[in-house]
Amino acid sequence: MTDQTKSDDVNNMDAIKRLADVVDARKADFLAGRADPEVSYIAKLFSKGDDAILKKIGEEAAETVMAAKDSRFGQMTPELQSKLVGEIADLWFHCFVALSQFNLRPEDVIAELERREGVSGIAEKAARKS
Amino acid sequence: MTDQTKSDDVNNMDAIKRLADVVDARKADFLAGRADPEVSYIAKLFSKGDDAILKKIGEEAAETVMAAKDSRFGQMTPELQSKLVGEIADLWFHCFVALSQFNLRPEDVIAELERREGVSGIAEKAARKS
Amino acid sequence: MTDQTKSDDVNNMDAIKRLADVVDARKADFLAGRADPEVSYIAKLFSKGDDAILKKIGEEAAETVMAAKDSRFGQMTPELQSKLVGEIADLWFHCFVALSQFNLRPEDVIAELERREGVSGIAEKAARKS
Amino acid sequence: MTDQTKSDDVNNMDAIKRLADVVDARKADFLAGRADPEVSYIAKLFSKGDDAILKKIGEEAAETVMAAKDSRFGQMTPELQSKLVGEIADLWFHCFVALSQFNLRPEDVIAELERREGVSGIAEKAARKS
Repeated sequence: MTDQTKSDDVNNMDAIKRLADVVDARKADFLAGRADPEVSYIAKLFSKGDDAILKKIGEEAAETVMAAKDSRFGQMTPELQSKLVGEIADLWFHCFVALSQFNLRPEDVIAELERREGVSGIAEKAARKS
Repeated sequence: MTDQTKSDDVNNMDAIKRLADVVDARKADFLAGRADPEVSYIAKLFSKGDDAILKKIGEEAAETVMAAKDSRFGQMTPELQSKLVGEIADLWFHCFVALSQFNLRPEDVIAELERREGVSGIAEKAARKS
Repeated sequence: MTDQTKSDDVNNMDAIKRLADVVDARKADFLAGRADPEVSYIAKLFSKGDDAILKKIGEEAAETVMAAKDSRFGQMTPELQSKLVGEIADLWFHCFVALSQFNLRPEDVIAELERREGVSGIAEKAARKS
Repeated sequence: MTDQTKSDDVNNMDAIKRLADVVDARKADFLAGRADPEVSYIAKLFSKGDDAILKKIGEEAAETVMAAKDSRFGQMTPELQSKLVGEIADLWFHCFVALSQFNLRPEDVIAELERREGVSGIAEKAARKS
């Protein structure tokens, strides 16, 4: 990814924000009776509530673990690697839904990761041998 | 987050890329014998390999579910919401480590989420009533 | 459970063996084309294979965690305790299916627990003060 | 297991009850200040409380999934099958600890499984083709 430009960065972050916006909009639609849980998967999750959303996190975590094992044993072919990426995407997507369900945003998680990186950066540097 | 500026986006995206870069750098350090697993948590995970990394995903998924329950039952106070954000940050962080372990990047996951949003956008719009 | 008799014990263990026998029989039926995956839930799991069975373990583990949290926050009412028991039953049931899928039996797991208890019994006794 | 005798069953059931009794006794010891969390693993779990116990269920579920994958890809050698049995034993053991933490017993779970088998037995039989 050496040729990745600054505009790609903005587009990537835009994707996260846009997806979170879509999830939040679908939640608002559902709450206002404008989204049909029979048709929209996201609306269906919101209609079922906390437990339906949270159990998906457990399920997608298990699927991520299985896809990683499949990729390792299958010599990490492009197809197996794509499967692994797809499962992590599923896991993160359901995290976005959980965040929306609890009135939070992916930006909050990223800010927390950023905060930790600042805090732990020195410790991690110290862990490098000379 | 209406007042969030484009420069905030770049900073946020920098956080994801920067953290993935830190993880990749620690992996390279570990592989070159320059990071001490006794001192660096990330180097320790890489020294233990696939299973140690993947089981953290199962553990952090469970902790995310528990923090969500705690927040719901505790009326989503700022402290409980921060705990939930912190657990999702842990979950994503260990996903970053897993991605590095399998020679992948968070950008790959974000691209997949972006691809899906393009594909499902029309279907989701169709799910909105009128 | 002070009034539980030896015959209850046998019945309890019989329940585990009988359920494992049912699962094994359904697997044999499925393999012989005698069980319809559209009608039998167990046959459906076997028709889908390893991943479908294993992801249920992740999902039921998450549901166990949620039911435990619900019971704690809800003062462990009989209804909430029954829900928790039911989720652990789901988790064990899908372990029985996984064991059958891998040509193993619950008795193997119980024997391993028994072996450990013998090994760790002295260590655990030593952990008791005075 | 055709040669398994009735006395084996009793021994097996003794193992479940005995282990649950050991867990309950360790919990009582801990609550009475007679078990040292620094020495006894079970006392340590009780000293940490609900979340420490429940997150182990998520972790052991992930390890069960990984061991199953390892066994499948490794042609289910005796060593890999033993590893899988060991992980399911870990998962069930931490279920025993969770049950004790919530004042429940494995017998409750077995009774629930038995109840369901009675209820679903006819449905499952109906699912068998002719």
